[in-house]
Amino acid sequence: MSDGINVAVLGATGAVGQELLALLESRQFPVKNLTLLASPRSAGSKIKFLNQEITVEAVKDDSFQDIDIVLASAGGSTSKAYASKAVAAGAVVIDNSSAFRMDDDVPLVVPEINPEAAAQHQGIIANPNCTTILMGVAIHPLHKVQPIKRIVVSTYQSASGAGARAMAEVETQAQAILKGETPKPEILPYPLAFNLFPHNSPLGDNHYCQEEMKMVNETRKIFEAPEIRVTATCIRVPVLRAHSEAINLEFAHPFDVAKARELISAAPGVKLVEDWDKNYFPMPIDATGEDDVLVGRVRQDISHESSLELWLCGDQIRKGAALNAIQIAELLVEKDLLKLSQKMTTV
Amino acid sequence: MSDGINVAVLGATGAVGQELLALLESRQFPVKNLTLLASPRSAGSKIKFLNQEITVEAVKDDSFQDIDIVLASAGGSTSKAYASKAVAAGAVVIDNSSAFRMDDDVPLVVPEINPEAAAQHQGIIANPNCTTILMGVAIHPLHKVQPIKRIVVSTYQSASGAGARAMAEVETQAQAILKGETPKPEILPYPLAFNLFPHNSPLGDNHYCQEEMKMVNETRKIFEAPEIRVTATCIRVPVLRAHSEAINLEFAHPFDVAKARELISAAPGVKLVEDWDKNYFPMPIDATGEDDVLVGRVRQDISHESSLELWLCGDQIRKGAALNAIQIAELLVEKDLLKLSQKMTTV
Repeated sequence: MSDGINVAVLGATGAVGQELLALLESRQFPVKNLTLLASPRSAGSKIKFLNQEITVEAVKDDSFQDIDIVLASAGGSTSKAYASKAVAAGAVVIDNSSAFRMDDDVPLVVPEINPEAAAQHQGIIANPNCTTILMGVAIHPLHKVQPIKRIVVSTYQSASGAGARAMAEVETQAQAILKGETPKPEILPYPLAFNLFPHNSPLGDNHYCQEEMKMVNETRKIFEAPEIRVTATCIRVPVLRAHSEAINLEFAHPFDVAKARELISAAPGVKLVEDWDKNYFPMPIDATGEDDVLVGRVRQDISHESSLELWLCGDQIRKGAALNAIQIAELLVEKDLLKLSQKMTTV
Repeated sequence: MSDGINVAVLGATGAVGQELLALLESRQFPVKNLTLLASPRSAGSKIKFLNQEITVEAVKDDSFQDIDIVLASAGGSTSKAYASKAVAAGAVVIDNSSAFRMDDDVPLVVPEINPEAAAQHQGIIANPNCTTILMGVAIHPLHKVQPIKRIVVSTYQSASGAGARAMAEVETQAQAILKGETPKPEILPYPLAFNLFPHNSPLGDNHYCQEEMKMVNETRKIFEAPEIRVTATCIRVPVLRAHSEAINLEFAHPFDVAKARELISAAPGVKLVEDWDKNYFPMPIDATGEDDVLVGRVRQDISHESSLELWLCGDQIRKGAALNAIQIAELLVEKDLLKLSQKMTTV
């Protein structure tokens, strides 16, 4: 690997794909060759990477020869269709979709939380749901010290979670509404500008939507703590690209707030942002473009002696998706986990 | 009173004042004479009411002669300065500010919840905080059947809670941001368009802001249930005039969800809005201009067997403020509680 890694980005033209490319550049990932893959619709477009101009190719079954790492962010059905081909060709797939996240033989990795899980991969590593990653990096430092018993979380999720076209729709909608028009939503199911609504992923029999159940199930898997009880209310808000979350954490015993702040301050991937005198706490506009999840309003819950509350904002496209995937790729290189995987898949 | 009620609106030119006037008209409140009062700054402006044009007068100590009901929405300091003058002159003051809400001899009334409390007034009746009213009408039908033990609520509060100028600021901010500008916030402390932030009311030593503590303390007082434990995270969102709330309710024993839906459906002031097949639930744009609080997503909390969750949206200016005040005035007339008060204050 000393001469670099052959990387393919699948879904190169999407919001997350674009961020993946920017991060490969800015973090000086040791890219040897970069292959850009997308749906036939997006094939042919040209994207600049470092000093090269690279043409986006339509993804095919044989797109993965000589690729070491596939960074996939083209949606669940594309990942399902091509991940096994990539793995068969010897690549490790870091998949942004939800397709494989709950598979027993697929590690679900947030490098700040469970880097060791990456070593168990059988060719696919899943990148968790965005709201789950952001919550995880913020609360895991506390969980390590005293296990969390129960989480009650309400989210304030940006348009970016529904893709670049949803982000654009919020802006054109706002423009139209300010002119007195009543625009018809096209990408999102309901108007989002100057409005908000519960997350529109399919609802299960238990009346939780898929987004909410991702927070429940993925948190348990990443924390390796199936006993944590989680309830989530996921709401889409008219913000462009940073999610916010109001989190209530119940422990078995009281958790000293000063200690909690200290742990969060010292934790990787998290930044404590709270100025109680100025009433200044994390906001989406401050989290946008930041690697760290901003956490503040860490306080004793006055309604329950063994509970704490906190508030966070994190860039949905960056740590919520692309950055976490790149960090997994960096982990594979650093710990020499690509070779291991290649050996395993060729056995 | 058969010949009508002499009504004064204090703060007639504000967002809530305007809504009070619209509701006095549309609900055909038996107004005999209407006096419009405001700060000297707003005095002299003319407002149409029914077929009259009424000139707004600067409020003075002797503004309350022959007034039966004062609807006050001019802020806490104005209420503190003039309420006792109005009561001394024989009026009943229905006060929208937080000035008297927690006073032991001031009833805090939501007519759907504790109408009987109004009868105890000594000249002043307080109209509760907007988020508290909206939550109260939604959850009290359940509390009556099985007492609520604990509430964990996260709010999504519209700009209207900070007044008409904050609403205008969100729109001009959005306009500027869409043009690529970076507007300076003037009314609100931080940009709100395409952003959100924790409620900026002053923070207490317990690290809860005043808005949050209103939800805690006023809910207990209205419900006459000082034992309810409440924690609230109040967040300002870029929505114009309807608040939303994600509410988690803990009971001592499991609460049947079907029964909860039935109770909410049958309750006054509340409308159950949930289409699980279409993923359609209350939204601020649907609650705007509505009298009822829209409630949906009533479900069993999967993290706690004795807890339920629900989601609501309610018009902050209407049921959150003006409508509730008018309903209190209607109650006073209907139950003949003005006379009682006048007798008491003249003894």
